[in-house]
Amino acid sequence: MNIISEAKSHGGVQGVYSHQSEVCACEMTFAVYVPPQASLKPCPVLWFLSGLTCNHANVMDKGEYRKIAAELGVIVVCPDTSPRGDGVADYSDDWQAGKGAGFYVDATRSPWSDNYSMFSYVSKELPDLIANKFPADMSRQAITGHSMGGHGALVIALKNPGKYLSCSAFAPIVNPSDADWANKAFTSYLGNDRDSWHEYDACSLIRNGNKLPPLLIDQGLGDQFLESGLRPERLQRVCDDAGIPVIIRMQDGYDHSYNFISSFMEDHLRWHALHLAK
Amino acid sequence: MNIISEAKSHGGVQGVYSHQSEVCACEMTFAVYVPPQASLKPCPVLWFLSGLTCNHANVMDKGEYRKIAAELGVIVVCPDTSPRGDGVADYSDDWQAGKGAGFYVDATRSPWSDNYSMFSYVSKELPDLIANKFPADMSRQAITGHSMGGHGALVIALKNPGKYLSCSAFAPIVNPSDADWANKAFTSYLGNDRDSWHEYDACSLIRNGNKLPPLLIDQGLGDQFLESGLRPERLQRVCDDAGIPVIIRMQDGYDHSYNFISSFMEDHLRWHALHLAK
Repeated sequence: MNIISEAKSHGGVQGVYSHQSEVCACEMTFAVYVPPQASLKPCPVLWFLSGLTCNHANVMDKGEYRKIAAELGVIVVCPDTSPRGDGVADYSDDWQAGKGAGFYVDATRSPWSDNYSMFSYVSKELPDLIANKFPADMSRQAITGHSMGGHGALVIALKNPGKYLSCSAFAPIVNPSDADWANKAFTSYLGNDRDSWHEYDACSLIRNGNKLPPLLIDQGLGDQFLESGLRPERLQRVCDDAGIPVIIRMQDGYDHSYNFISSFMEDHLRWHALHLAK
Repeated sequence: MNIISEAKSHGGVQGVYSHQSEVCACEMTFAVYVPPQASLKPCPVLWFLSGLTCNHANVMDKGEYRKIAAELGVIVVCPDTSPRGDGVADYSDDWQAGKGAGFYVDATRSPWSDNYSMFSYVSKELPDLIANKFPADMSRQAITGHSMGGHGALVIALKNPGKYLSCSAFAPIVNPSDADWANKAFTSYLGNDRDSWHEYDACSLIRNGNKLPPLLIDQGLGDQFLESGLRPERLQRVCDDAGIPVIIRMQDGYDHSYNFISSFMEDHLRWHALHLAK
């Protein structure tokens, strides 16, 4: 693991690191905030998965999580959203598939399957690295994310029962197998067989009986993608049908940007901390 | 004034705007955060002046001021650091002079004097626009800034007695007429006569009897520019000699970045709000 940068922030350390990923077969960059409490004892871990076009830096710069993470004693890990590098397959003219759009799946179709293994990367390989290199209590993990990263948080929690003590999301894509902006990525990475898509679709997984830890969703009512690609009412319906309690908060006037995320980041951190304290 | 973007954030509105500046003779962009209290009554104004290489967006993205400004009911205005545009003089290969390095002076030497009037812009023209276009109580203004912008905050407060109720700075350049990284800019904008430099040098102005409102300084002890260009001990000395009370806090381990600024932004906002409430 290489240290790209480390800086004191709110009493802890905000770092940026890189390492050679086996599952993604490329160098991957990620950000970790370690709160001051970590000098006394291992701290619980909150994963933040970012949305389309982002890398590790967007939420690190604009997410406003450090002050509260430092108060609560929570490590915050922010992975990239796709494999990177010259040799990695890409659609250079499309922000909805290829680099910056890994969709947190393990691709099965060539050439995407050479590198696009973000599901395994975020749920297995990177956690192992974090456990080895940081003062982390990996028995206490929670997961959140934004938009495509909210989809990632939901799907990774649904497919790893017991691993995350709580799950939340900001404006998540809850039903990507029926959302225009996931079509090209899912077709490229997984092929045309829709059954394989449902393995990475939160609504489908809930309908199929997968379980979730406590779940908190925030959604801006001024979000330009609300009706076309996000549709939280579908998550409400499948959770109601499955008897899964979910808090979905519709926030008046907020858009899809980090202005929205940062406005409710404190709520999410405090809510996760309650579950991580168990 | 053109609206470039407006987004709800922490209950208020973070906007980015542009207008044709008379004194800079170019289009200028600036950011304004209006807290939710402004729907009830005009709010006081805190100016944040940014450092070398920055524009309005750096502190807007990374400064973490909105949550506290929304609580305290303070408008935060973030100007650019220099004139911009194709016709504006520049040193394209030097980050310490030209675009992004206006140093908050009114240039007197050609060609810089055509556009580089950041002192008049920040202390006169933009305040008039803010007064006209936003729900601002201009009888209650405070000023802060980072590095070159800390220099700007100090100098603008010193040269406008009574206008700002409080002044603070993060790692300010307190003595630019004797700092390497201001030499090229000051020589270009003001010429070789050092007397003209002292008109824009906080230590010189204090030594010459100019007065300051209450003053708070934070300085990271891990700042890579501490000894070469910042030297807060010089400010301490001239303030002591002049009988001006100043709080200078040396913060262990913090560098010159926005990790430092955002860590102490809340302290500065709360301190300014005390003075703005008078």
